[in-house]
Amino acid sequence: MHPKVNAEIIAIGDEILFGQITNTNAQYISAQLDKIGVHTIQQTAISDSAEAIQEGLTNALQRADIVLITGGLGPTKDDLTKYTLAQYFNSKLEINEEALAHITHLMVSRGREMNELNRLQALQPTKAKYIKNEVGTAPAMWFNAPDGKVVIAMPGVPFEMKHILEHQILPQIKTMFNTESVIHYYIKTIGIAESALAIKIEDWENSLPQHIKLAYLPSFGQVKMRLTTTNSDQELAKQELKNRAEEILPIISKYVYHTGSDIDFEAIIAELLQQNNLTLAVAESCTGGALSALFTNMAGSSAYFKGGIVAYLRSIKENVLGVPSETITQYGIVSEETAAAMAIGAAKVLDADIAISTTGVAGPSAYDNKPVGTVCIGISFKGEVFTQTFQLMNMRETNIRLACVMALNKLRLILNEKGIGLK
Amino acid sequence: MHPKVNAEIIAIGDEILFGQITNTNAQYISAQLDKIGVHTIQQTAISDSAEAIQEGLTNALQRADIVLITGGLGPTKDDLTKYTLAQYFNSKLEINEEALAHITHLMVSRGREMNELNRLQALQPTKAKYIKNEVGTAPAMWFNAPDGKVVIAMPGVPFEMKHILEHQILPQIKTMFNTESVIHYYIKTIGIAESALAIKIEDWENSLPQHIKLAYLPSFGQVKMRLTTTNSDQELAKQELKNRAEEILPIISKYVYHTGSDIDFEAIIAELLQQNNLTLAVAESCTGGALSALFTNMAGSSAYFKGGIVAYLRSIKENVLGVPSETITQYGIVSEETAAAMAIGAAKVLDADIAISTTGVAGPSAYDNKPVGTVCIGISFKGEVFTQTFQLMNMRETNIRLACVMALNKLRLILNEKGIGLK
Repeated sequence: MHPKVNAEIIAIGDEILFGQITNTNAQYISAQLDKIGVHTIQQTAISDSAEAIQEGLTNALQRADIVLITGGLGPTKDDLTKYTLAQYFNSKLEINEEALAHITHLMVSRGREMNELNRLQALQPTKAKYIKNEVGTAPAMWFNAPDGKVVIAMPGVPFEMKHILEHQILPQIKTMFNTESVIHYYIKTIGIAESALAIKIEDWENSLPQHIKLAYLPSFGQVKMRLTTTNSDQELAKQELKNRAEEILPIISKYVYHTGSDIDFEAIIAELLQQNNLTLAVAESCTGGALSALFTNMAGSSAYFKGGIVAYLRSIKENVLGVPSETITQYGIVSEETAAAMAIGAAKVLDADIAISTTGVAGPSAYDNKPVGTVCIGISFKGEVFTQTFQLMNMRETNIRLACVMALNKLRLILNEKGIGLK
Repeated sequence: MHPKVNAEIIAIGDEILFGQITNTNAQYISAQLDKIGVHTIQQTAISDSAEAIQEGLTNALQRADIVLITGGLGPTKDDLTKYTLAQYFNSKLEINEEALAHITHLMVSRGREMNELNRLQALQPTKAKYIKNEVGTAPAMWFNAPDGKVVIAMPGVPFEMKHILEHQILPQIKTMFNTESVIHYYIKTIGIAESALAIKIEDWENSLPQHIKLAYLPSFGQVKMRLTTTNSDQELAKQELKNRAEEILPIISKYVYHTGSDIDFEAIIAELLQQNNLTLAVAESCTGGALSALFTNMAGSSAYFKGGIVAYLRSIKENVLGVPSETITQYGIVSEETAAAMAIGAAKVLDADIAISTTGVAGPSAYDNKPVGTVCIGISFKGEVFTQTFQLMNMRETNIRLACVMALNKLRLILNEKGIGLK
């Protein structure tokens, strides 16, 4: 039996407590720890003050084996983490020559002058192990605490933290702690509410053994179910979760777009397109580029994504997409007829097998005599056209995201009906 | 002198600790509390377990006057918050008729059947004040704790939480606690590194009085400086911060795009366009819709944003934007020449005063004989064309976001040179 290894993550920064930035680092670190079988038991955000750092660290070390700290390692006066940790561990600070050489090299290669604040970033607690920041000037540091516990401080800039965590911290944690794996199995659904889903599978949920935990995670039109267990035999555990999941698939199959891994919906659509050699284009009005961005955020999207037209104005719908002026006049900007013409136009102009269009009222104000949240979707599939109208929420950002999801789900259902699926 | 009112925010949910979702609720709540003069002293995320909830709540009540809890109020078995709070406050649970009527109404109006799990959502601790959730089925609740402290539980679904917080919780907190205001003043910069900025203004920073705090907040090519103080006379305090800020503006003016409020860079660009009656179009290759989305995410963007073309493939660049095939063949897809032709094409096709284009190598692989992070920007301003090449980072998502910022900054500098600014 492997020991259970627990971690806590402490983010330091008034900008988090003032609500000026979201603590995305905590999410990223937890996800990475989860993969190597380390359980995050608490995430905490505290102030840039020596007292808060000391108290937070003391409390975390009482509960967790590993404490990961982010933030407060920058060059400016409000950055107190390094000095507070040195005091906490009763350590001197000295210029670390390796750090100094690296910082100097970075500054020179970026064509910048080395300044006194950069030099001070090489000042390191002598009791900490120096951890090189390949992509930035603030080094990370690793302290060994009593009882075999460890405290790791990393810079708060997300891409620097990610690079250090992946290349230096995680390998050392894996070596030092011998962990039991946490195994997750996902059933990813779309188009059904959490409570309706829970009722459909109630008997099954009640029949799950104690060591399997089920969670429902709703987000933007989707509910993902997560089955979790721990086991030193990962393959065995995964098979057990898979078998359990398969018991309910027949009941909810039309809502399920993926089982097993926690892959994003748009990645499934991308895979569906690639496997079937289908190309995609989009014509976006109310989603304004967000649908394109869903695809282009994924590496390799040029294999199936031909491009998009953000047709925000009526004139663009007419002149670039070729939507007939009469269609808009007769049915309105936000109508299934206009959506259909936009999709047909996009498929033609961008020369794609499939085109998706969106036109709607994202908010905050009603428009074209339609209430906020009205969204029309058009899909052109090799010349055949499908449309649907959705009544979504009353918040702009939510509507934009929901409209993207609804449009992709419509495409998924059309392809399903045609027998086009994943191999 | 007003009392200092402190709050803590506790998010409940294994999905946060597994790293599957980011705790965006904490950021939102902190920002809202900050506006009414309540200081968030800690944000904590803990597990969906009765023990963790009890321990977290006990600790938070030792430090804070107000504890705001999110999550774990859903209809399914993994939602324990309501039951744990009832136990903590030694309260019975009873069906709240007002809640039941509201839930029934919501379900009927959505064309769904009322089920047993929905009914159980009306079960409320009798010692808590029932707080209606206008936009969802899970009610919020408000407990009065000893020593005049309060504990408030809200659902974790962001748009439900936001609606309840804004309409019901914040007004009650304002009435109950008499708070001193926190005043922030921002100096928002772009195109200069944090340490270089800090050195330029070192003497000034050292001269700041104790009651004014300065923080440097770097993000994607930008550094925002935040001056903070507390005062019961908001106007006086704001004037003091403004006077201080103005002392350094002459030294750093070319990097500063805004002072005062914490407005986003793209909102400043939008304002710049609107005030000067300029229309904008975009032609995106490597940013893939992200630049369009920056504008269309803002309400009212149709006043100046004409639309965009996501020209991911060479054929779209040629056929839709009219980039000459020879230009691409001779200089490459990722070149200032192609960027220039894309911008000219977008301005023409989308009939805009200004067009911005992006073409580059977002990553993860090199492309067109250019390394990852090479981004060429083109800007067409009423027929005049400007271009620039940037060497960014090696991570796809970061490059997409940085490319958007760099493109908008290039536009800002061009407009500045022409004497086109904000009134």
